Amino acid sequence: MKKNERISVITKILSDHPNEVFSYNYFTDLLEAGKSSVCEDVAIVKNAIELTGTGYVETYSGASGGVVYHPQVTREEEVSILKEIADQLQSPARKIQGGFVYYSDILSNPRYSKNIGRIIASKYGQMGIEYVVTTETKGIPAAMETAHYLNVPMGLIRRSNRVTEGATTSVNYISGSSNKIKTMYLSRRIDLKDKKVLVIDDFMKGGGTAKGMTNLMEEVGAEVMGICVIFVTRSPAEKLVEQFTPLIWMDDENLESGLRVSLHLES
Amino acid sequence: MKKNERISVITKILSDHPNEVFSYNYFTDLLEAGKSSVCEDVAIVKNAIELTGTGYVETYSGASGGVVYHPQVTREEEVSILKEIADQLQSPARKIQGGFVYYSDILSNPRYSKNIGRIIASKYGQMGIEYVVTTETKGIPAAMETAHYLNVPMGLIRRSNRVTEGATTSVNYISGSSNKIKTMYLSRRIDLKDKKVLVIDDFMKGGGTAKGMTNLMEEVGAEVMGICVIFVTRSPAEKLVEQFTPLIWMDDENLESGLRVSLHLES
Repeated sequence: MKKNERISVITKILSDHPNEVFSYNYFTDLLEAGKSSVCEDVAIVKNAIELTGTGYVETYSGASGGVVYHPQVTREEEVSILKEIADQLQSPARKIQGGFVYYSDILSNPRYSKNIGRIIASKYGQMGIEYVVTTETKGIPAAMETAHYLNVPMGLIRRSNRVTEGATTSVNYISGSSNKIKTMYLSRRIDLKDKKVLVIDDFMKGGGTAKGMTNLMEEVGAEVMGICVIFVTRSPAEKLVEQFTPLIWMDDENLESGLRVSLHLES
Repeated sequence: MKKNERISVITKILSDHPNEVFSYNYFTDLLEAGKSSVCEDVAIVKNAIELTGTGYVETYSGASGGVVYHPQVTREEEVSILKEIADQLQSPARKIQGGFVYYSDILSNPRYSKNIGRIIASKYGQMGIEYVVTTETKGIPAAMETAHYLNVPMGLIRRSNRVTEGATTSVNYISGSSNKIKTMYLSRRIDLKDKKVLVIDDFMKGGGTAKGMTNLMEEVGAEVMGICVIFVTRSPAEKLVEQFTPLIWMDDENLESGLRVSLHLES
């Protein structure tokens, strides 16, 4: 394989497997090239990826040396991605009876869920996250993409007790929107004991679901390293959880005059 | 930017945006390079990607010329990916009371859901699919990845009527596992009229859910181009839908002696 082609192949492999360490031997075998050539190739890829602002490549030298790609989103790109989503949210056609805003299509669009996942992974990339957890349903795609970029599994919390999950651990929580006591369930086959977890949710009003998830994490012995919520309403100002990172604020106090949204980064 | 770096950048962009057409002008502007250089670079990337067996790059010439990457999975890679999943399924620890097999963690692992998405997208890449639809919950990650690789949105069918989806179209269906009549709902804000859709589900026993989804697609005027189901049980042999593509067969007639699984490709 020619040098140019090797560079293309290395780029593709690193880019497809964020936060996964590849040994130099893996590449020398795959590309049938010497170690010094591969080292040169990797240095070029490292440069190119850093030039695009989509992350950085780390290399470890020595016998057990390796290469790993850490995706990152620049502040500028983050603002531009979230602004595009925020603009869409403000369309009057998205108003739903009962003071809700329709956003299911946005989170089910791979383009947006991938970008949201990249943004969240970029924020928590240095924290040694071992598991991403979310509660079904609408936040699953973004949580999944976050898990992909962090190279960790996702644990799915259910809102009803499903036979297919086997034995579960459950906690009760107060659903903010309906003010009812509900229950969430996590399969006991997902072992989160002493694991560093990142909690992701698509929407927060009172914070009941997020609070429930942190209680559930405590119950199973996991360490919550952060809570990241995609859409958070301005009111009520007091949420049931104290520490969380919102991506987009929804100012829904007076929805009749239209939803106003703002980015957390800019507020 | 040097030629080597340009090649790395082009590879990353094409690989991150499968089935999306980029004009040559996009690259000449981004890379500050002439069109003939970019054409050469693209030819090298095309070669390299084809050498890795992960797909092919199509180029259109002319004033409105462009470049697009179509991911593909070779039969050999498909067998190896599905075999790894099948092997895991056979672990006795996965047996759940009531004759079920625990696989939620497999589909929630980005590594597997991405690969499954690539496999499905590879099968339906030539059919002009405009939407991927799935029913919540466990199949969402794989459906999402399929949508990503096909560069189309995903439509999420709900098992209960959620206020956040707005007005919905609903159909009744028979849930095979419980033999009860249930209802599935699709937001009317997702316009599938005359759209070519690919239906994805994680599990099929009797085929009731898949049948419900095809009825729902008929109801909203969509054209079902295919039904792809990740895990399908051997019994009952007669399913409620006639045409579908299974990835992995579960031979669960005698679960006490352990689940036997086989790949559709090999059967």
